[in-house]
Amino acid sequence: MAIEPFDAVSVIATKRDGGELSDDQIAWMVDRHTHGGHVADEQMSALLMAIFLRGMTRREIGRWTTAMVDSGRRMDFSGLRRDGRRLATVDKHSTGGVGDKITLPLTPLIASFGVAVPQLSGRGLGHTGGTLDKLESIPGWRAEVDGAEMVAILERVGAVICAAGGDLAPADRKLYALRDVTGTVESIPLLASSIMSKKIAEGTGALVLDVKVGSGAFLASEAQSRELAETMVALGSDAGVRTSALLTDMSTPLGRASGNAVEVAESVEVLAGGGPADVVELTLALAREMLDAVGLTDADPAAHLANGRAMDTWRAMVAAQGGDPDAPLPTARHEDVVTATESGHVTAVDARSVGVAAWRLGAGRARPGESVQAEAGVLLHVRPGDRVVAGDPLATLLTRTPERFSGARDALARAFTVGAAPVDRPRLIIDRVTVDS
Amino acid sequence: MAIEPFDAVSVIATKRDGGELSDDQIAWMVDRHTHGGHVADEQMSALLMAIFLRGMTRREIGRWTTAMVDSGRRMDFSGLRRDGRRLATVDKHSTGGVGDKITLPLTPLIASFGVAVPQLSGRGLGHTGGTLDKLESIPGWRAEVDGAEMVAILERVGAVICAAGGDLAPADRKLYALRDVTGTVESIPLLASSIMSKKIAEGTGALVLDVKVGSGAFLASEAQSRELAETMVALGSDAGVRTSALLTDMSTPLGRASGNAVEVAESVEVLAGGGPADVVELTLALAREMLDAVGLTDADPAAHLANGRAMDTWRAMVAAQGGDPDAPLPTARHEDVVTATESGHVTAVDARSVGVAAWRLGAGRARPGESVQAEAGVLLHVRPGDRVVAGDPLATLLTRTPERFSGARDALARAFTVGAAPVDRPRLIIDRVTVDS
Repeated sequence: MAIEPFDAVSVIATKRDGGELSDDQIAWMVDRHTHGGHVADEQMSALLMAIFLRGMTRREIGRWTTAMVDSGRRMDFSGLRRDGRRLATVDKHSTGGVGDKITLPLTPLIASFGVAVPQLSGRGLGHTGGTLDKLESIPGWRAEVDGAEMVAILERVGAVICAAGGDLAPADRKLYALRDVTGTVESIPLLASSIMSKKIAEGTGALVLDVKVGSGAFLASEAQSRELAETMVALGSDAGVRTSALLTDMSTPLGRASGNAVEVAESVEVLAGGGPADVVELTLALAREMLDAVGLTDADPAAHLANGRAMDTWRAMVAAQGGDPDAPLPTARHEDVVTATESGHVTAVDARSVGVAAWRLGAGRARPGESVQAEAGVLLHVRPGDRVVAGDPLATLLTRTPERFSGARDALARAFTVGAAPVDRPRLIIDRVTVDS
Repeated sequence: MAIEPFDAVSVIATKRDGGELSDDQIAWMVDRHTHGGHVADEQMSALLMAIFLRGMTRREIGRWTTAMVDSGRRMDFSGLRRDGRRLATVDKHSTGGVGDKITLPLTPLIASFGVAVPQLSGRGLGHTGGTLDKLESIPGWRAEVDGAEMVAILERVGAVICAAGGDLAPADRKLYALRDVTGTVESIPLLASSIMSKKIAEGTGALVLDVKVGSGAFLASEAQSRELAETMVALGSDAGVRTSALLTDMSTPLGRASGNAVEVAESVEVLAGGGPADVVELTLALAREMLDAVGLTDADPAAHLANGRAMDTWRAMVAAQGGDPDAPLPTARHEDVVTATESGHVTAVDARSVGVAAWRLGAGRARPGESVQAEAGVLLHVRPGDRVVAGDPLATLLTRTPERFSGARDALARAFTVGAAPVDRPRLIIDRVTVDS
C-alpha cells in the first residue's frame, strides 16, 4: 500500500477550523476524490460545506481550479488555421438566466468576423434553460461533436456549440453532482472554480463572462454577483486567458421567449436584424467585449446583424452539426393565455417565476437526464414600463401536455406587478469587470 | 411514490444559513438517513458539518437525541426484581480517557449494594481504550449478552458490562461512522446527543457522567467539557433519567496501568482494597453519586472495597459472562523500560502521549474491527509531584511485538516533564454538574 501524504479528516478539520489549505492538500483532495480511493463522497461533502461556511482565499480558489483542470484533458486550439492564417479563439459564458438565448446569435456573430468560438455548453436544470436543449429543437441538430470534428468545423465555419466531453474537468462533474444534493451550490469559491475550470480546460484564448444579477440569478445580491465576477476574472487571467465580465440584469427575463424552440426562433429574429431590444443590446455588448478581446476593436457587430453575415454563419453552424436551418421548428399543440386582472403600469416581470413556469410547462428538467419538450415555454407580451388594461394578454403558455397549465399559472401568480405609476425599465448592463477594475 | 414532507437540501440549507431546524425536520432527517432512502450519507455529512459550525439550540439537541432513541428499540429495566423487591437501576458513562478503568471496579461495587447496573459499553478507538477490550483479556469472558440473559444476570448478580445490541439507537451508530471520517466528532451537540441517545435507550433510571478535562479528553478546554456536561445533564433530565456529572482531570492518565490486561489487574487491586490513590478516589466519588441517585445516601462504598463485598460481586459478574476470575491474565513477552534523562521533579505526565504509546504497543486499534493485544500497554512508575533521579525508570512498555517499541518511545518522548521545582498533583475532581447548577 502506497503511503498517502495526507488524510482526508485532517484536511477537512483544517478548513473546518478556519485555516488555509496548502497547495498540496488541495491537489491531493481533488485528485483522490476524482479518481477514487482515500477521499469518499461523504468526506468531500463535509469539506464542501466547510468551504461554503469558511470560504477560501484567492490562492486556495486558484489552486482548487487548477486541480480540477488537471483532473482531465486540456484542449488546445492554438493550432487553428484558415487560409494559412492563425485563428484567434474567444468564448463566452453566462452564469445562467431565464430567456437567456444570447449564445445562439452571439456565437455565429463573432465567428462571422473570422474568429473561432469553441462554445462548450450544458443542459438546463431547474428554472434556467440550457443552450444545448434549445438547439436540439432544430430538426437533425446534434450536440455531440468529437475533438477532431470540432477543429474541422472551427477552421471551416468558425463556430461550434457542443457538449463538453467527459474527459474535460471530470473533477468538476463529480463535485457538481455532490454540491447539487448537499446544499453547497451557491458558494462563490465553488461556483467560480467550477465555471473557470471548464473554460480553462477548454483552451480558449479569451473569455467574456456574463454574470447575472437579480431574482433569476444564482446569487441573491449584486455584491455577491460582483464578487463572483471579480473572482472569475482573476482566475482566468492567472491561467493566461484574457478574461473580462459584464454584470447584467436578470430581474426580468431576456426577450419575450423563455423555452426551447421559442428561444431559437427569437434568436433567428435577432440574426435577421430584428428581435427584442434587450436581446439585441446584450448580444452587441457581449460581442463588443469579445471582439475587443481578440484585438478587433474596429469591427462593427451591428453591421453583421444587419447585412446577413451573422445569419450566414448561423446557417453554416447549424448545418455543420446535422441541423436543417430551413426546417420548421416544433410548435405547441396547446396554448393558454394569462391576462391582466387590473389596469396600470407593469413595474416588474419576475424572472424566476417565468423560469419556473416554463420549466413546469415541460421546457426544463428536475433531474439530470430527463427529457424536455422542444415546444414548451412562455411568451411574454409585456415588459416593465409597459401600460396594460385589465383583460390584456400578459403571457402565452405553450406545452404538449395541457395538464401542466395549472402549475405554470401558479408559478406566474405573482410574476407580474402592476402599479399606478409608470417606471423606467431596469438598466440591462450594470457594470463591467476587468482584471484592472 | 409517497410524498416526502421535506427535502434534504432545504433542511441542510436551513442549518447552513444559521436557522433553527423544526422538530419535524430533525425527526425526518434522522429517520430517513437511518432507514435508507431520501437522505444519503453525503447529505447527512454536509448537515453534520453545518451543525458543527453553526451549532444547535438546546431544543434542537433534545429533538435530535429523541430521534436517535426512536430509531431503535428502547430497553426497559423497570420490572427487575430480587427476592420480590424492585431493583433500582443506575449507570455511569465516561467520555473516555487514558487508563480509565473505573467502570471495572465501580460496576460491581454499586451492585454489591443491591442496585442493578446495566452497563452497555464500547470498544476502544485511537488513543482511548475500551471497557470491553479490557474485560476480554479475562480468559473465557464474552461481551455479547442478549436481553433476556441481561435481565437474568441483573436480577441474580446485579452487574452486567456488555456490548450494546445493534437495535439500540442504530441512528447513532450510522452517524458516528460518518462523523469519524468527516471531521465532525468534536461537536458538543453531536457528542452530547450521541452519548445520551444510547443511555436513554438503555432504559436506566439514573445516570452519572464522568466528563474528562485535559489533554487526554475529547474536547480541548475545560469550558467545552463543562458545556458538554451541562448539555448531557439537561438531556437526561428532560428524558426522565436522573442525571448528574463530575468534571474530572484527564491531563494525567488514571492510575499506573494503561492497556487491557494491566488495567484489569489494577482494577482487581482496587476491589481488593488497594490500588492507586487516584483510581480509588474517582471510583469512590462516582460511587457516591450513583448511590445518592438511587436514594442510598447512607451506603459506604469504601467499606465494600475493604470488606470484600465488591470483590465478591466482581467474581460473580465475570463468571456470569463466562470468565474465570481465578485464571491468570495474559502477560507480555517483551518489555522495555523508559528511564529519566535528568533529575528533578515530575511536573506533568501527558495523558494523550501515554494513550498513543499504549495504542502503538498494540493495546488499541486504528479502525473499528481490528483486534487488540490483551497483554500490551504502559505501566507508569512516576506521577506528577514525584521526585526522580536520572536513570530512574519512568515507564515500562509491554507488547507481544517488540518492533512496536520504537513508535511507542516516540510517542512518550515529550510525555514526561521534569522541572527544578516541586509541583502539586492536579486536582482530580474538578467540579460537579447537576440539573440545578
